[in-house]
Amino acid sequence: MFERVDHVGIAVRDLDAAIAFYERVFGVEFTYRHTVAEQGVEEAMGRVGESWIQLLRPLADDTPVGKYIAARGEGVHHIGYGVADVEQAIKDCVGHDLKMIDHSPRGGSRGASIAFIHPKSVGGVLTELVQDPE
Amino acid sequence: MFERVDHVGIAVRDLDAAIAFYERVFGVEFTYRHTVAEQGVEEAMGRVGESWIQLLRPLADDTPVGKYIAARGEGVHHIGYGVADVEQAIKDCVGHDLKMIDHSPRGGSRGASIAFIHPKSVGGVLTELVQDPE
Repeated sequence: MFERVDHVGIAVRDLDAAIAFYERVFGVEFTYRHTVAEQGVEEAMGRVGESWIQLLRPLADDTPVGKYIAARGEGVHHIGYGVADVEQAIKDCVGHDLKMIDHSPRGGSRGASIAFIHPKSVGGVLTELVQDPE
Repeated sequence: MFERVDHVGIAVRDLDAAIAFYERVFGVEFTYRHTVAEQGVEEAMGRVGESWIQLLRPLADDTPVGKYIAARGEGVHHIGYGVADVEQAIKDCVGHDLKMIDHSPRGGSRGASIAFIHPKSVGGVLTELVQDPE
């Protein structure tokens, strides 16, 4: 099912500072920046090989990423894995009795179709299935 | 500096169960399993695209990964990024005033040369530099 590490999602307080840090120190170029109001984040994506670093700034304290930072501080928020067919991947996960956050695909970054699996079903790792756009 | 996501390091309590879960549900095949006594872990590596999932079981409660699980539960412990030259990468990080856990390379999984950067210097992300063996 997993074809690649699509992205590492990292919760940050200051998106400008985080982008500048990853660019200056680690040479990661952020080519995509977007506000996703329904998820309560502003995000930036920087390419690393076949993967992305996804920096996530909460738009408010009572958003999922805002609550994450309040509880645990900045750090890795979730891991996204590339899959060929997110609808089939959801069915397979449900067939293995995993608890889905998304029971049907929704729109993700860069036109991708995505679904989250609850971290309680994946050993504490908030896990995202990502199907790239055609 | 960062050429790829080398691996996602995930702290688990039961290595056999975690390997079986990732293989059965996500189709990840674990081809490498090894005890690293000086780091206090037993680890297993499963290929995902150009990256690995690294499952880490602490050998005791008072090891770094054991303390991590006690404090935060199972979950993502660190991210390893591939670099061409880990010695040069350490110098570059020091030049940017990052706090290194390892000031010189040490041996990592699969014969790699590695160095950890303190999470306080990388927005809460324990970050590993990984140079593959020749």
